[in-house]
Amino acid sequence: MGNVSAPLAIFVYAHLDTAAKELLRSTLPAEGVTFVNKYETADAQAAYREQFRASDICFGNVPAEWLEGVSRLCWLQLESIGFEYYLQVRGLPPSLAVTNLKGLFDRSAAETALAGLLALYRGVDVLVTAQTERRWVCRDLRPRMQTLHGKRVIILGHGSIGRMLRRLLEAFECRVQSFARTTSGAELRTTADLDRALPQADIVACCLPNTPETCGLFGRDRLALLAPLAIFVNLGRGSVVDESALLDALQSRRLGGAVLDVTVEEPLPAAHPLWGCPNTLIMQHTGGGYEGELLDKARVFLANFAAFRSGDPLRNVVDLARGY
Amino acid sequence: MGNVSAPLAIFVYAHLDTAAKELLRSTLPAEGVTFVNKYETADAQAAYREQFRASDICFGNVPAEWLEGVSRLCWLQLESIGFEYYLQVRGLPPSLAVTNLKGLFDRSAAETALAGLLALYRGVDVLVTAQTERRWVCRDLRPRMQTLHGKRVIILGHGSIGRMLRRLLEAFECRVQSFARTTSGAELRTTADLDRALPQADIVACCLPNTPETCGLFGRDRLALLAPLAIFVNLGRGSVVDESALLDALQSRRLGGAVLDVTVEEPLPAAHPLWGCPNTLIMQHTGGGYEGELLDKARVFLANFAAFRSGDPLRNVVDLARGY
Repeated sequence: MGNVSAPLAIFVYAHLDTAAKELLRSTLPAEGVTFVNKYETADAQAAYREQFRASDICFGNVPAEWLEGVSRLCWLQLESIGFEYYLQVRGLPPSLAVTNLKGLFDRSAAETALAGLLALYRGVDVLVTAQTERRWVCRDLRPRMQTLHGKRVIILGHGSIGRMLRRLLEAFECRVQSFARTTSGAELRTTADLDRALPQADIVACCLPNTPETCGLFGRDRLALLAPLAIFVNLGRGSVVDESALLDALQSRRLGGAVLDVTVEEPLPAAHPLWGCPNTLIMQHTGGGYEGELLDKARVFLANFAAFRSGDPLRNVVDLARGY
Repeated sequence: MGNVSAPLAIFVYAHLDTAAKELLRSTLPAEGVTFVNKYETADAQAAYREQFRASDICFGNVPAEWLEGVSRLCWLQLESIGFEYYLQVRGLPPSLAVTNLKGLFDRSAAETALAGLLALYRGVDVLVTAQTERRWVCRDLRPRMQTLHGKRVIILGHGSIGRMLRRLLEAFECRVQSFARTTSGAELRTTADLDRALPQADIVACCLPNTPETCGLFGRDRLALLAPLAIFVNLGRGSVVDESALLDALQSRRLGGAVLDVTVEEPLPAAHPLWGCPNTLIMQHTGGGYEGELLDKARVFLANFAAFRSGDPLRNVVDLARGY
């Protein structure tokens, strides 16, 4: 895990604000740290690639192709939970440690799901639009409103975000079942279990990573199992659902609504029909967002850096070869 | 409490849908029930006034002036929790029982408050507007987002809505204090307690009825005690706050935002400046709304009607003379 007595070359590619950079500058060694603006042009970025190849440590999600053939790099701290971009990279040195930000976005992502669900049930989307038009819609809206209380929910994924979401939904006395194939504590363990439960669910919330197993899990047939008033929530990755089938279900009102923090294409192109779908909230991958998140990302990196220097185990190591 | 052996004249003035009316028709006595459309013209309504005066029982919020000088009426079941409209009526027969719908809107109102708070913290208002413009705002929005988790909250009013709201906020690990002068279980018992606590609150949520004591409770001076990022929530009645002072605080960004289920004027006139206030959600008195609420109102009336007929105590009796 690297020669900790040699001077370390640290490559900081993560998107950070002034406060987060300041924290890194005041904590990391004075020499050997390179800060890169990841939003620079591709040309400017290409120039950094050589510097990256000469680095021992990288903080930030560099383009996947940069990892091809790396030899010196011994630790990559991602600035995300997701790491599907790197699953295709071949020939990584076995000694390379990769860590992610698991756990950092639990509360914000679960609250974004709750915000979206409560918005649909309590008419916030209708009220916000009516407000811009200064239009009183109370009498029309009230009979169409619902409460989250007591809803039957299936949460796919029993990781830290799925568990946080479950805890919050249970406070609203929702009846929650979790689907996970490998984790204990989930009521639904197989897709057969899932398919039996789906027609009874008022809410189906995906908190799954993008892996070969989850990709396309909600195809047209499985989406057709959902009840006509059900709400589909996606906090994980867009790839879990066949978006064309989802669009059809929403537009034809065979599905009650959707709260989509993630989509296959991000940013979602202006011409994409999802923008105009009825009862659909496009949350624009803001689920992880909160004031101070960049500072917290820097703190996670620094805590792992301290462990790295003292030879202690790194936290949140992911296995690119196995996909988790 | 009325002569239960004589044929009863029942005057149904409540706003009901087909299902609720059907339930009443199939449960109430076949004779003696008059259904009135409360949204008819004033002329049409005036014609019903005589019929009301000849009724033993009324279900629905008749105009306050209709109550002046009533003598036959022995029970008025309101279709609301609030009953401030009737506090000025003089000379009511001491035998007249008045009941309200206390408890019916706890979940829906508390969820509307949560929906509004989470919308502001998770950017739902910004996202809904961006969605109509098909505009990707993720990078701008994320650093301004917050979580509800751990916020310090003061809830004014420790009735059934205030207690439900408290329970839900505590699931988000909010640190909640309740203000109530007469109820046990509230941490803040005097306005001096309240004023000491207000500057530390992230959220101030009013769940107070309109009474002489609560009217104008949040005047300009008390509003000025709130922190610049605090969110003011009003689930009770618009009269609790000096709206002109609230407007000034919101427009000058001396207050973080507002979630207003109630306003002094309802419907809020199109020219009212509250519609355009920054970080303000006008919830249009939809807090009590949910699919089935009209049927539930009819059920509450029928349960009380059964009690009335058998001489049992009515539920949710309010005292117009004392104001609660």
